[in-house]
Amino acid sequence: MDYKKLYSHVVSRAKASAIRELLKVTAMPEIISFAGGLPAPELFPTKDVADILQTIMKQTPQEALQYGTTEGQKSLKTQLIKMLQETEHITVEPENILMVSASQQALDMSARMFINAGDAILVARPTYLGALQAFQVAGADIIGVESDKDGMIPADVEKKLAALQTEGRPCKFIYVVPDFQNPTGTTISEERRVQILELAKKYGTFILEDSPYRQVRFEGKHLPTFYELDGGAGHVLTLFTFSKVFVPGFRLGFIVGPKDVIARFVILKQAMDLCTSPFLQLATAEYLRRGLLAQHIKEIIECYREKRDLMLETLKKYMPQGVTWTHPEGGLFLWLTLPKHLNSSELLTKAIANKVAFVAGVDFYPECNVFNDMRLNFSYSSKEQIVEGLKRLAQTIKENL
Amino acid sequence: MDYKKLYSHVVSRAKASAIRELLKVTAMPEIISFAGGLPAPELFPTKDVADILQTIMKQTPQEALQYGTTEGQKSLKTQLIKMLQETEHITVEPENILMVSASQQALDMSARMFINAGDAILVARPTYLGALQAFQVAGADIIGVESDKDGMIPADVEKKLAALQTEGRPCKFIYVVPDFQNPTGTTISEERRVQILELAKKYGTFILEDSPYRQVRFEGKHLPTFYELDGGAGHVLTLFTFSKVFVPGFRLGFIVGPKDVIARFVILKQAMDLCTSPFLQLATAEYLRRGLLAQHIKEIIECYREKRDLMLETLKKYMPQGVTWTHPEGGLFLWLTLPKHLNSSELLTKAIANKVAFVAGVDFYPECNVFNDMRLNFSYSSKEQIVEGLKRLAQTIKENL
Repeated sequence: MDYKKLYSHVVSRAKASAIRELLKVTAMPEIISFAGGLPAPELFPTKDVADILQTIMKQTPQEALQYGTTEGQKSLKTQLIKMLQETEHITVEPENILMVSASQQALDMSARMFINAGDAILVARPTYLGALQAFQVAGADIIGVESDKDGMIPADVEKKLAALQTEGRPCKFIYVVPDFQNPTGTTISEERRVQILELAKKYGTFILEDSPYRQVRFEGKHLPTFYELDGGAGHVLTLFTFSKVFVPGFRLGFIVGPKDVIARFVILKQAMDLCTSPFLQLATAEYLRRGLLAQHIKEIIECYREKRDLMLETLKKYMPQGVTWTHPEGGLFLWLTLPKHLNSSELLTKAIANKVAFVAGVDFYPECNVFNDMRLNFSYSSKEQIVEGLKRLAQTIKENL
Repeated sequence: MDYKKLYSHVVSRAKASAIRELLKVTAMPEIISFAGGLPAPELFPTKDVADILQTIMKQTPQEALQYGTTEGQKSLKTQLIKMLQETEHITVEPENILMVSASQQALDMSARMFINAGDAILVARPTYLGALQAFQVAGADIIGVESDKDGMIPADVEKKLAALQTEGRPCKFIYVVPDFQNPTGTTISEERRVQILELAKKYGTFILEDSPYRQVRFEGKHLPTFYELDGGAGHVLTLFTFSKVFVPGFRLGFIVGPKDVIARFVILKQAMDLCTSPFLQLATAEYLRRGLLAQHIKEIIECYREKRDLMLETLKKYMPQGVTWTHPEGGLFLWLTLPKHLNSSELLTKAIANKVAFVAGVDFYPECNVFNDMRLNFSYSSKEQIVEGLKRLAQTIKENL
């Protein structure tokens, strides 16, 4: 049976991720991989989780195991409202929040809610690959905005928005990862956040703010979210996830936005999967209720900071002249740039032969037109692996200079 | 900020479910509701689940709490392959299976994979509302096929397929709920299954088989799935879920189909939510590994059979002449038909005033053009509620004859 003639346009737009294919190769135990984006599993709060699960099964088993509401469990929203108020100075009500199956689902839903095939959106060059995939599936015309060590450059945002206006095309949204962006590790400065938000207002579009790493800040000033800067005036939808600060295996995140937009998201989500697991929502609510998250985030920060420091030191020690890298103030990744004549995708084959892996940067550019970057993850590998892996990587680069 | 000009076509296609709105009203404790579709929570195997969760947290906490593969956890697939072999005479390999967040996600994914706006599909009249919603979001031209007490009528399937062929339009798939269908409780006879499958082959389309209730059979012969009848030749995609036979709160289901189609689904799912919770997959795998499912299903069958019997008896006792209903051999629902001149949506307002609720049948018809049916759920209410609720319903009908 040939399904090809029955497939929709979505199938031709959904491309197998090169990274995903790569991860299979790099899963071999002899390879030191900086390719993935996994949290350090040794930090998972397994004892607390085990205890919480028992509490849920004792106290509210029937609620936990039954269907939940599409909007999300009330007890979790109560905790989130408290958390947003205390840590983000964001004041919201339950109707401003939709629980989702982690932020990838929020990205897919955002794409479906706003993008018709051919519609324009703005993203940073480079940006998170998973977001690009979700936007591509919807058929978006993804317009890259130049960025530097302070993130997206407002002048280029305005240039692109003005060009669209001249063409009579709306920009459906501006996608940003303001803090310790995946893949570069860079943070959008406060000044730029204000400027980009003003541009969104001026050109009648909104900010889609993706904040998975935000709470994992090692140093520097905690900057306000776009949502806070907007004062809840409705120009920002913000996506949070528990994947990086609690556990990814629970697949739990949430969208914060204007009530009328959230109500639309609820209707879409009902058709998509009815609801996100109430069991995992109640477990996460209990984790928050016990006040365990703040201490756990401290442990994550301490561990990842040490790993980042070690990675920065080791890079400095071994990398040849002409190689540069970012200095992220938080998160899980840094971004390494090779001399222009080197192609990181070609280098990767040689690196794997030398038993070290990374992600080539090209796929993070919507236009796939920059070839000499790579993303390095520092959260997953052990310290020994970081040193040994970077030695191998430096050696590989030197051999190919 | 006005989002209306930024929304995609999806937003206008995604309609708030009348049922969902209704469920809020009928959640009031004084109302006896036959409206929902919830499993009986008192049957949830809470003790076993609590025990299994502890085992998972002892044995494989890091795998459970980390990101999983998009395809699904190997240990669960191993159990599913065994289960499919033993209970369904279906032989598959891991690459024939994709784990999803329950069957609503599978329906949404199927819609996205196959339907471009305006594409035709066939469904039974009436059919599952959640499927209609998923297909509507994709912009499907949903063509209703007449059905009777033996399910979809093959002659009408052929008539509709032939008409599409004449128009030069493909039928993207034929959606069926073969066993104890939601909403009618009817089962497609084996003869018709064979005929409908042959028609799919003849007209170059496939069967999308949705089997959430299949294992909950009270009586009669266990019929082969379309998948089994096809002998794995690739003309059938089958959707299973644990929502009705284990717990809905885990949001876990799976798609079985040809490897090349499953591989496409995997790519789409990666863009949609990366993976379904590995934690809940491992817990379910352990439940299956311990061999607990078969006994649990027996308990569900026994309980729901008694409730169905009671509902049938009580209907017979109290319903006025001219009211008819189906006699489902399994599942959670039966379908009641009023005399033609009565409108069940109008009756519902009066029923709620009399403190009993049901779902009006009109929304289960893709054309929304039949007004005198209602769906009654017998799994959720207690026996006392069934008797008292049906008395109230019969009284309401009599008052409006």
